Amino acid sequence: MNLSVNNFVEQPPLSEAAFIAGFHAIGEERYHHKHPFHLLMHEGRLARGQLQAWALNRYYYQSRIPIKDAAILARSEDPAFRLAWRKRILDHDGDGTRSGGIEKWLRLVEATGLPREQALAGDGILPATRYAVQAYVDFVSTRSHLEAVASSLTELFSKKLITLRIDRLREHYPWLSSGLDYFTSRSRKPPKTPNSRLPGSCGTRARANIKLWRMPPCVPSATSSGPSSTLFILPT
Amino acid sequence: MNLSVNNFVEQPPLSEAAFIAGFHAIGEERYHHKHPFHLLMHEGRLARGQLQAWALNRYYYQSRIPIKDAAILARSEDPAFRLAWRKRILDHDGDGTRSGGIEKWLRLVEATGLPREQALAGDGILPATRYAVQAYVDFVSTRSHLEAVASSLTELFSKKLITLRIDRLREHYPWLSSGLDYFTSRSRKPPKTPNSRLPGSCGTRARANIKLWRMPPCVPSATSSGPSSTLFILPT
Repeated sequence: MNLSVNNFVEQPPLSEAAFIAGFHAIGEERYHHKHPFHLLMHEGRLARGQLQAWALNRYYYQSRIPIKDAAILARSEDPAFRLAWRKRILDHDGDGTRSGGIEKWLRLVEATGLPREQALAGDGILPATRYAVQAYVDFVSTRSHLEAVASSLTELFSKKLITLRIDRLREHYPWLSSGLDYFTSRSRKPPKTPNSRLPGSCGTRARANIKLWRMPPCVPSATSSGPSSTLFILPT
Repeated sequence: MNLSVNNFVEQPPLSEAAFIAGFHAIGEERYHHKHPFHLLMHEGRLARGQLQAWALNRYYYQSRIPIKDAAILARSEDPAFRLAWRKRILDHDGDGTRSGGIEKWLRLVEATGLPREQALAGDGILPATRYAVQAYVDFVSTRSHLEAVASSLTELFSKKLITLRIDRLREHYPWLSSGLDYFTSRSRKPPKTPNSRLPGSCGTRARANIKLWRMPPCVPSATSSGPSSTLFILPT
């Protein structure tokens, strides 16, 4: 199936079945479970410095997710959509009693041996990370609402990867195990946007791969070490 | 106290006490409890057609409040601020079980004798209403975050007005009494942003009057009738 992002305008809309199949095909092909950095991670070949750089830079992405989701929410005139989407902001910011994803990710940063204050201050966040994250926020703010929503559906593919990641992180980096609550809590949650709702909100060609190819690779010269000198920053 | 919106840039910041006093002075002077339309409303001098036009046009404003608040939320990098502000979106959109302000306002529209479908379809919403509401959303999206927040603090002044309004609506328009849940539920709630938090988030000259003077008067030629031919659309 050809789902190149460059030619969808010229093609007719997909049928519902083809849309859902195409969506999952994109995930299988382009979700970052095949990314070299993640492959190294899951093989236990990353040094602590690389995991620190990953956790630190990914924190910046985490910290902007509620901003991204509020921007999407602000573009909808449908209270039912807003109610469903608000859940995403709650998931990341928490509810004042239970921690959200941002706080859980800060605990992962701490488990790598970095102080949370470093993440909060943005000390060590790479320019390319800031660029990519801001580009994502700009994307959902300026492109069509459909594209904004579609770019946020990657959790449909994430559960299998997260389950694998938890196992591999525990196996290869046991010193990280106190910081895995972000992943363990996500592995227990059902998808925020079930398959059955996809066609209704996205009844045209899938564009969920937009986010995937907009997160560029980053090379942290200061903090990486170990078998690979290249660090890629990608979500999940 | 001179708190003209035109010259605050040139003046030094207020002390905390002066800021709070000035904020309340603006409310006393410029909040819409003195508006001619509301005075007529509270004196029992509005015809049903005028109350219908008011409820219908005000519905449009209500329906855009979560959009406005999500736009403000999307501009904050502070999870604690976002958590507090998210409550406003919940208040209007509901939580899936309890109705929010938008649904309650639709019941008020129905109590005036108009079908909710008319409000949902925007049939009878005046161009000036659309303009004013969109200007408010644009304002919080493009001006400083401080100004966006300040423009949303008018509920600090609203409780007394809402209490009065409930009494007068029940007295003068008993046929409306089944639709007053929007007001009765607001009269029971504490302010969303307590006085004690104002200086922290707004430590400069008060601009809460911005919203008040940006909602222009509207003249609904088709739907108004009764003692006054002029209908003003303003929140609360």
